[in-house]
Amino acid sequence: MFDGDRPAKWGYNLVMKFCSTCGEPVELKVPTGDNRERFVCNSCATIHYQNPRIITGCLPVWNDQVLMCKRAIDPRRGYWTLPAGFLENGESIATGAARETEEEANARVYELELYTVFSLPHISQAYMFFRAMLEDLDFSAGFESLEVRLFTEHEVPWDDLAFPVIKQSLEFYFEDRKNGSFPVRSREIDLKRKR
Amino acid sequence: MFDGDRPAKWGYNLVMKFCSTCGEPVELKVPTGDNRERFVCNSCATIHYQNPRIITGCLPVWNDQVLMCKRAIDPRRGYWTLPAGFLENGESIATGAARETEEEANARVYELELYTVFSLPHISQAYMFFRAMLEDLDFSAGFESLEVRLFTEHEVPWDDLAFPVIKQSLEFYFEDRKNGSFPVRSREIDLKRKR
Repeated sequence: MFDGDRPAKWGYNLVMKFCSTCGEPVELKVPTGDNRERFVCNSCATIHYQNPRIITGCLPVWNDQVLMCKRAIDPRRGYWTLPAGFLENGESIATGAARETEEEANARVYELELYTVFSLPHISQAYMFFRAMLEDLDFSAGFESLEVRLFTEHEVPWDDLAFPVIKQSLEFYFEDRKNGSFPVRSREIDLKRKR
Repeated sequence: MFDGDRPAKWGYNLVMKFCSTCGEPVELKVPTGDNRERFVCNSCATIHYQNPRIITGCLPVWNDQVLMCKRAIDPRRGYWTLPAGFLENGESIATGAARETEEEANARVYELELYTVFSLPHISQAYMFFRAMLEDLDFSAGFESLEVRLFTEHEVPWDDLAFPVIKQSLEFYFEDRKNGSFPVRSREIDLKRKR
């Protein structure tokens, strides 16, 4: 999932009112020896750090086609995406990418190779996509997808893609396919909330 | 910083006792429609997600030497490391790497190129190092370093490196230098808390 269930938190420090350790009110301030505002508990002194999240996904390949999902959830419901979602604690980045592919497209992949890395500071996210081989054609829409299907380059719904990182990853892929060489692509996308 | 100020949280879900939104007690349970345990507030229904963190850093290069820092903080105080630390909200991954290099080594870098990506599921961290050019020799130990210096390949204190990701990044670098080609290296390291 892309976190349709927590859109309000996207890219922002999640507002804290109470200390999760002792239950007393917290205050937003710069802790001693630090240079950034954090939520700090004046009662038990706990500093509550908040950091960017990783979204991991796959670019599943079948011959000259790629597998995509039509989003069933906000944001960008009805737009096409690659299967991806938040990396979970205790999970490797590649394992998370395969899990999201299974969850959103009921599809199994192998030979995952890191391919694109995007830094999105405006929403405090990092996206990482793996090229992956689709195991078979036994796929279907998962809970968060309206539809799942394969696209050749010319069939890709370029005007109906969910996010810039999806468009960019697909563009890199179809370009690199011409040479048969897929170096890891690292980019910063800073849209200041614009799509 | 490598987070010397919050070692107790490394790799674990941070234990929550109270809801940071409403201050009532939380419970660890699998929310409806989910398949993982989260801290959930039974009073206001907030689900408190916790996700892996990104540690970003540089491999600063000066001719045939690399810049390293001797750690002044736990864990691994007294061992050698590359300048790196937690990516902050609102910050690009490369910007974070340069900031940490400035903080730990009082050094400025340019031409940052993503080089190594490590997934460390056992501690819920992802490490990302950038090759970078050192701007000048005006560097010195920052607050979290005991000493900062340049090392040629043969001078590197291989037995006194702070973390496996440091050793691996340096090994990749000196090997790739022979060919003058530095493809992004992506690895999973799962040590189950062993070093």
